[in-house]
Amino acid sequence: MAYGTETTPLAPAPAATVTGLLSDIASTGTDALRGGYTRPVYSTAELDLRTWFIEQASKRGLSVETDRNGAIWAWWDVPGGDRSNSLVTGSHLDSVPGGGPFDGPLGVASALVAVDILKSRMAAPPRPLAVVVFPEEEGSRFGVACLGSRLMTGAIDPDKARNLRDSDGSTFADVAQANGLDPRFIGRDDQLLGQIGAFVELHVEQGRGLIDLQQPVAIASSILGHGRWRLSVHGQGNHAGTTLMADRHDPMVSASRMVVAVRDIARKQPHARATVGRLQPVPGGTNVIASRVDFWLDVRHPDDAVTAAVVQSIHLQAQVIAAEEGCRVELREESLSRTVHFDQGLQKELQQALPHAPILDTGAGHDAGVLAPFLPTAMIFVRNPSGVSHSAEEHVVDEDAEIGARTLADALQGLMIS
Amino acid sequence: MAYGTETTPLAPAPAATVTGLLSDIASTGTDALRGGYTRPVYSTAELDLRTWFIEQASKRGLSVETDRNGAIWAWWDVPGGDRSNSLVTGSHLDSVPGGGPFDGPLGVASALVAVDILKSRMAAPPRPLAVVVFPEEEGSRFGVACLGSRLMTGAIDPDKARNLRDSDGSTFADVAQANGLDPRFIGRDDQLLGQIGAFVELHVEQGRGLIDLQQPVAIASSILGHGRWRLSVHGQGNHAGTTLMADRHDPMVSASRMVVAVRDIARKQPHARATVGRLQPVPGGTNVIASRVDFWLDVRHPDDAVTAAVVQSIHLQAQVIAAEEGCRVELREESLSRTVHFDQGLQKELQQALPHAPILDTGAGHDAGVLAPFLPTAMIFVRNPSGVSHSAEEHVVDEDAEIGARTLADALQGLMIS
Repeated sequence: MAYGTETTPLAPAPAATVTGLLSDIASTGTDALRGGYTRPVYSTAELDLRTWFIEQASKRGLSVETDRNGAIWAWWDVPGGDRSNSLVTGSHLDSVPGGGPFDGPLGVASALVAVDILKSRMAAPPRPLAVVVFPEEEGSRFGVACLGSRLMTGAIDPDKARNLRDSDGSTFADVAQANGLDPRFIGRDDQLLGQIGAFVELHVEQGRGLIDLQQPVAIASSILGHGRWRLSVHGQGNHAGTTLMADRHDPMVSASRMVVAVRDIARKQPHARATVGRLQPVPGGTNVIASRVDFWLDVRHPDDAVTAAVVQSIHLQAQVIAAEEGCRVELREESLSRTVHFDQGLQKELQQALPHAPILDTGAGHDAGVLAPFLPTAMIFVRNPSGVSHSAEEHVVDEDAEIGARTLADALQGLMIS
Repeated sequence: MAYGTETTPLAPAPAATVTGLLSDIASTGTDALRGGYTRPVYSTAELDLRTWFIEQASKRGLSVETDRNGAIWAWWDVPGGDRSNSLVTGSHLDSVPGGGPFDGPLGVASALVAVDILKSRMAAPPRPLAVVVFPEEEGSRFGVACLGSRLMTGAIDPDKARNLRDSDGSTFADVAQANGLDPRFIGRDDQLLGQIGAFVELHVEQGRGLIDLQQPVAIASSILGHGRWRLSVHGQGNHAGTTLMADRHDPMVSASRMVVAVRDIARKQPHARATVGRLQPVPGGTNVIASRVDFWLDVRHPDDAVTAAVVQSIHLQAQVIAAEEGCRVELREESLSRTVHFDQGLQKELQQALPHAPILDTGAGHDAGVLAPFLPTAMIFVRNPSGVSHSAEEHVVDEDAEIGARTLADALQGLMIS
């Protein structure tokens, strides 16, 4: 229906907004059961979002490529096409089960709008600029968070990645192949890594820092180191009906006192977060005093030494409680990631472009954190008035979303001319 | 090898002992993984024990019959064969997973030895005496404890019983049929019930009462009333890394404080037992603050009014804790069994036969408790020096086992001539 196109001058296309782009995908991958969105990597929902992204990138004249690990790259090339010392921005489109609409897509939509803004300011970029979409950032399908960036940097062994299985039992290799990748060639991509001069990821804040500071955006300083420990409390299994209260060595009571101690110890240590979200009594019968209780401890702090001290303090207190209850406790480290400090030089350049933005750390992992040991990376956080993430309650107000995209454009422009 | 039998007078067969009988079956159904014994109803192990029992009963000249519900009855009939006003003793041969050697088999072996003792004292019994083996007392295969006695008394609907499934998905109807029963005819057995004048079950004590009293055997007064309640604690699910300690409404911390409160409340109430042996955080991820925690509460007390008061006190304290943590708690009753008081007349007759035996209540369920509303029942407990049951640690010393059998014989003799 091209009527009028010949006689009437084209009205200028309305400028895309972050809110407008996100409303395009507001009905994709909604989860009626949990609320929010369920968009695991290579699900119909996530594939629809990829198609949407490729259309949006193409509409902007960007050159779209998918790399050997399934990340999508949309390039705004310099004249001549040299891609060395490129600037890259972007995020991810996959979600946790029942996640919010902004975790991932906000960074992708903001990147597209930032390209629009920069295109209105310059005919061609002084440095090549790419918008990237990383796959499986959440790890909610194959169990490894930031799988795309880990593969690209070699932080995960490709053989281990090929053999990861989803809850249906399908391997990552099979799912990747069904989605057009050659699983033989997944893994470290030195050529692509060598082209990236800096990576800036915009992301919804997953805490309350910007609410308290009453600011719309912040620059990230670091990703908190974190670890997982497993505690096993051994007591004496017995009959719930016949065993007098005074005769018990109940590991469930011991473990419960330990969970409360974890919270109390973390509360006394500024910036520490300690969580028990998983706990399993053995054998787990209603009418049986448990013989053992296993629970998992997640501890995070910006200073790795403090993380270690918090865990040590919890371990000591757990031993005291176990002794008082006639039980025994073992603690075993399951994983430990050191704090990631983002590149100081890049952070200073961003501060010059965004003089009012406060500096915040975060407790959440991101692809920017995986890339940080390999190239200068930075992050920009946008205020989340609910303070809640990985939940349908996650939120960003329209005005902040647009401020975020302009901030990203300003930051990228600052880096282009620096 | 019958050499010598013709020229040498037969040595009197060594008198059977409880310890000797139990050593016959000491290798049947051992569980290398859990320790102890795993003898679910109609497993190879339990079927082997049934065969052993039938052989032992036949050797004693008892007349063995299996009833419509799968209980085995071994009769020592009076001359003329009238079975009205019979005395019955016995127990069960099935076990919980990883159970001890005495829970069930002690009562069966003691009954056989008691028959030997009584046969040495009298040529024929003044009242008919039967030794019974009830099936599925533990409920560890089909989920309903005392299934055999419940079927016999009509305490469970036969249709419900037919449709019970084991963990392999097999129905009780199919398993019963494969073991020679006609599942159409399971259910209340008025003829058999009408023949029983009294039932006396000997059982290993599942607590420490006799240890504290320094006595080998006791007479039971009652089975504690007990109930199960489910508590659901609702909080705010969130990111374990980004959510500050001060901003949390963590149902895991709330539930842990409640588990400790359950123990503290029960400790203050003499004779009360309150247990949390099962607890499930939702979603249960290591790096996720739970949004909900469900846990199950088992409470028992000889006085049903005190049980109700303990649960009310726990509910109130749980509501206080939930409010303090910014959470919400719901309590729902899942089952409630009133206290079973054993027949006073029968208990007095037993006390006359066993003047030194103390009177104890118990928190464990038994077939004698299921039968109690229908006919006079009593129980005799034998000391368990570990105080532990439903575990390989359960124990009875040889001397106490023999005292138990003699006590049972004396009690039955007292009832025969009363």
